[in-house]
Amino acid sequence: MPITRDDCQALDASDPLRACRARFKLDENVIYLDGNSLGALPRGVAQHVVNVVEREWGEGLIRSWNEAGWYVSPARVGAKLAPLLGAKPNEVIVTESISINLFKLLVTAARMRPDRKVILAEHGNFPSDNHIVDSVARLLGKEARFVPAGEVAKAIDADTGVVTLSHVNYRSAEVQDMALVTQAVHAKGALIVWDLAHSSGAVDLQLDGTKADFAVGCGYKFLNGGPGAPSHIFVAERHLGALDQPLTGWFGHAEPFRFDDGYRRADGVRHMLCSTPQILSMAAFEKALDAFEGVSMAEVERKGRALGDLMIELHDEFLARLGCGLATLRDAKRRGNHVSLTHEAGYAVMRALIERGVIGDFRAPDVMRFGFGPLYVRYVDVHDAVVAIADILESGAFNQKALAARQAVT
Amino acid sequence: MPITRDDCQALDASDPLRACRARFKLDENVIYLDGNSLGALPRGVAQHVVNVVEREWGEGLIRSWNEAGWYVSPARVGAKLAPLLGAKPNEVIVTESISINLFKLLVTAARMRPDRKVILAEHGNFPSDNHIVDSVARLLGKEARFVPAGEVAKAIDADTGVVTLSHVNYRSAEVQDMALVTQAVHAKGALIVWDLAHSSGAVDLQLDGTKADFAVGCGYKFLNGGPGAPSHIFVAERHLGALDQPLTGWFGHAEPFRFDDGYRRADGVRHMLCSTPQILSMAAFEKALDAFEGVSMAEVERKGRALGDLMIELHDEFLARLGCGLATLRDAKRRGNHVSLTHEAGYAVMRALIERGVIGDFRAPDVMRFGFGPLYVRYVDVHDAVVAIADILESGAFNQKALAARQAVT
Repeated sequence: MPITRDDCQALDASDPLRACRARFKLDENVIYLDGNSLGALPRGVAQHVVNVVEREWGEGLIRSWNEAGWYVSPARVGAKLAPLLGAKPNEVIVTESISINLFKLLVTAARMRPDRKVILAEHGNFPSDNHIVDSVARLLGKEARFVPAGEVAKAIDADTGVVTLSHVNYRSAEVQDMALVTQAVHAKGALIVWDLAHSSGAVDLQLDGTKADFAVGCGYKFLNGGPGAPSHIFVAERHLGALDQPLTGWFGHAEPFRFDDGYRRADGVRHMLCSTPQILSMAAFEKALDAFEGVSMAEVERKGRALGDLMIELHDEFLARLGCGLATLRDAKRRGNHVSLTHEAGYAVMRALIERGVIGDFRAPDVMRFGFGPLYVRYVDVHDAVVAIADILESGAFNQKALAARQAVT
Repeated sequence: MPITRDDCQALDASDPLRACRARFKLDENVIYLDGNSLGALPRGVAQHVVNVVEREWGEGLIRSWNEAGWYVSPARVGAKLAPLLGAKPNEVIVTESISINLFKLLVTAARMRPDRKVILAEHGNFPSDNHIVDSVARLLGKEARFVPAGEVAKAIDADTGVVTLSHVNYRSAEVQDMALVTQAVHAKGALIVWDLAHSSGAVDLQLDGTKADFAVGCGYKFLNGGPGAPSHIFVAERHLGALDQPLTGWFGHAEPFRFDDGYRRADGVRHMLCSTPQILSMAAFEKALDAFEGVSMAEVERKGRALGDLMIELHDEFLARLGCGLATLRDAKRRGNHVSLTHEAGYAVMRALIERGVIGDFRAPDVMRFGFGPLYVRYVDVHDAVVAIADILESGAFNQKALAARQAVT
């Protein structure tokens, strides 16, 4: 018997995370299933940012670098984030973007394995990651080698210095077994750089527990840090003494205000910084993390999987016969916090959905992606979204012409 | 006869830029002479940022990447900034930080001169720039060579591929003759990357007129873009087809939303982007530029020099006999928009000044730096600041012990 809307409401009523939705400002007429692309706005962020602009910048002026703690914000926010990643406070720092941080970590890791010529990466990873892999290989005179995620472990050999892959694939949502892969990497003497773009804030990460070496993550997806929120870097404590990153800006210098000629790297994870942080975006991200206060990441992961299971069940019931396909794994344990459906008219269907207030995103050529911010998405939202998709497909209420006129849905 | 406070008030009354001060929110009890480090808060920025947070992020959600123009903001803000730099709209883009942008441009320029082994830079430049020069040289197998700014022109030889120096030195405020140096660089077949950190928004730049190749600049100093505001990149139109930068993130890709495996660079200056922009900081910067509406940069430069001349005149009259020295050039035409005074107790004096509401900054070991945001600093402010310095020095109202306990004054 198919699951009903009443069943979904009952699931919401007994959801241990049900109180978290009130921590966000959400339009009741919108079903927001795109928190994997841009998380919703947590309450309190706007007021905090105004305070930073008017009080700290406008009145405190330059003094706020010390007095408002701007200067130490990358480490302070990193320490606040660390428990959500299964990391120690001194292993995480918040700065710049994923691509830039990946660049830093890949060069750093490759320099720790100078005699090994291969950087092994995931074919089918988010392309920007692989473009950075190519660039690092070119600069360092290494070889970039790409294999599908499932073949990474067996592709590691004595030439492999560094392995990088996404923990959760941006498209298929497939989750890698962090402990297992990391073990395989270490068994061959290589180092691993994880991309946590679709993991941080969505799944129960155990960076220390799985012995990960390095990781980068995203602030604006499941961590709800705001558009373009700064990224985060994880460095395992055991590597903190051996870092040697290439973007040698003053914020990673041991004593930036001595203005010495030579670069001396800061102790610890602070060396991974390069530049003056963009404070307004940093402030929004810092405040946004309050939405996770008292939240169990195990519960977040459990709910995300349950929401995904629900969407797949409803897809099988209502959408499969309308030409939709499933581009994510059925096994919830191997799936991250989004579900990708395919349809040849996917772009136009997504446009029609958005017009009805059901917001997901589209990834070329045919993927409709629905992400489940577990702090604010309800079971009933997933139900209603599937009903809307079915209705659009059945009624032909999407413009076929739009197929030819695809434009970016970020 | 020394200039009096009344004379300064008369200068303010006839100042062509006097109306601009009302465009900023400034505490009347503060004399702010640190716009070279963090510009003052323009009116309207707080409201604009709140709107971006509450309406664009909170309500528009992911749709705002297209509908609110976030996606094109780096180019849009670059085009808005371009006239202040003497550049064309398609030559400027706003992104990331100076250090990161310098890294991109140095690698790009060096790749345009593959057979030349030297990157020539300025000894005494802002150290972060030179750390980046060292890192680029190491990655590319080039030689970093450092000479004082005044010797750069004659140090260029057939081995020199790239020259980089600051247009206005962060410490001495010495201005390089952009046309002359650029000509010398080009005469030897090399390329130049200018650092405009202390120039953009302060002096009458003519990037196109001087035939500059590349430049980076700062958003949070004289452009008043807020703490850590994004930086800007200038690429001369003639080089736009030949760019090949190393931070190959998706925002510099020709078609980021096709998710192709291979990197294809975007046409034009957009290739210099790497990552998703930090939108809240970008929004503040964009709005802050309104403060320059209708302002002549020639007038800005003229006033900045006049304020500097005034401070030097008052230094000679009141401060020289109290142990102060002048660390900037007397010739206004060769001086940027700040004046550096030295005193062995400089750090403690600056602390005492700040307690009185006269805000400058301190640069180790002994430099008190006073910058003149020409849109909001008045002649009478400079007068009153010098009176305060003299009073502190005469009264010994600074704590000698503080000399030993220096801490960062950003």
